[in-house]
Order: sequence, then C-alpha cells, then structure tokens
Amino acid sequence: MGEDEESRALNLKFDANGLVTAVATDAADGGLLMLAHMNAEAFQRTQETGRAHFWSRSRGRLWMKGETSGNVLTVIELRVDCDQDAVWMKVKAYGPACHTGRRSCFYRRVDGDRLRFD
Amino acid sequence: MGEDEESRALNLKFDANGLVTAVATDAADGGLLMLAHMNAEAFQRTQETGRAHFWSRSRGRLWMKGETSGNVLTVIELRVDCDQDAVWMKVKAYGPACHTGRRSCFYRRVDGDRLRFD
Repeated sequence: MGEDEESRALNLKFDANGLVTAVATDAADGGLLMLAHMNAEAFQRTQETGRAHFWSRSRGRLWMKGETSGNVLTVIELRVDCDQDAVWMKVKAYGPACHTGRRSCFYRRVDGDRLRFD
Repeated sequence: MGEDEESRALNLKFDANGLVTAVATDAADGGLLMLAHMNAEAFQRTQETGRAHFWSRSRGRLWMKGETSGNVLTVIELRVDCDQDAVWMKVKAYGPACHTGRRSCFYRRVDGDRLRFD
C-alpha cells in the first residue's frame, strides 16, 4: 500500500486535467445527489465557504452549485478516498441538486437497456 | 435541457478514454464505499453477473471487485445520472470495499489541510 493511504496530510491527486471527482450525498438520508469535478480552486472555495463549488468541464469555468438557482449545497462533512483522487461531501441541499429540477441527478434506474423513472 | 435527460433508453456517455465514473454505496445504510471507473465491457459484465466490475486505469485491465480478495459487491440497484456519464450502484458488500481492508475507501475526514481517521 502507498504512503498516501495512511497519511494525515491532505494531498489531493488531481488528474491530467487538474481535477478530482466529487460526490455529494444527502447528509440526512445518504442518497446520492450528484457527481461532478473539482479543480484545486473549487476545492479551496468549498472549504472556505462551506458551499459546494465545482469546475465545469463543459463551460470551462468555476461555479458554485446554486449560484443562479439558489439551490446551494452546504457541506456538513468532507472526506477523501484512499488514493486522494475523489472527494465525498455530505451535504444539506437547499432545493433540487439536479439541473432538471429533480432532487438527485440519479433519477433513473437501469433495467436491461431501458431506464425507469422510479 | 437535452433529450438524453428524459430518455428511457440506456445510452452511456463514455469519455475520451471510454470510461464512465461508477459509485458504490451500501444498500443497507447509504454509506459511500468506493468510486472507480467502468468501460463498456465492465458495465456489461456488471449487468450480466450482478457483481461490480471496473476498468483499472492503473493496470489497464478489466477487473471484478473481489476477484482475488473475495470481497465482491453484489449490485442491488443500478442507476444513471442525468447526462448518463455516471453510474450509481447500491450494493451488498461482502467484506471491506477498500483495498486497505477498510469498509469504505472514504475513511478520512478533511479538517483544514489535515486528514482525520474518524
């Protein structure tokens, strides 16, 4: 096992694009709300403000979740995985986390090659 | 909003490396166990066998979680996100999900620039 896995020092392993994957779950019931990416600045802003910030790969810019909709995610707890290339936020969600207006982005269940809205 | 977001057809959006991100949570208590990646074959094998398969970017090969350790993840429910580039598996975990022997890969909490094992 690598040294980083037992480290007490934060040392995020950003990928070739400068990103780590970030997952947000509802602190109240554990439901997976959304998955997105953070660069170093997004992670820092998240820590500083207590509100989830991400790097938008499609728009090529930093954004705060809820910056236009008001549906912010307040971070209750922040965790990293063994190899420090993924971040888990337990959050309190103010409104829907998904841009489609749904509570979670994972609103469809896979059933063979079909998706079910349940 | 895009058409895919309301689609009932499975149409995973693999990235330039042919991968989607896959998250496994414990079906019993919602805890986040691990985050990894799947190519089309890993996803297909997961569906066919009901056991989580991934693509290892570091080893450059398909693997079944638990293939050597026996700590398999049995998929209880499989979901996709709005833009179909991320997969959520609710699983029953047979043994630790993390290769360090811990139940979850997210065994450290971020506290400023320090990590706490709690």
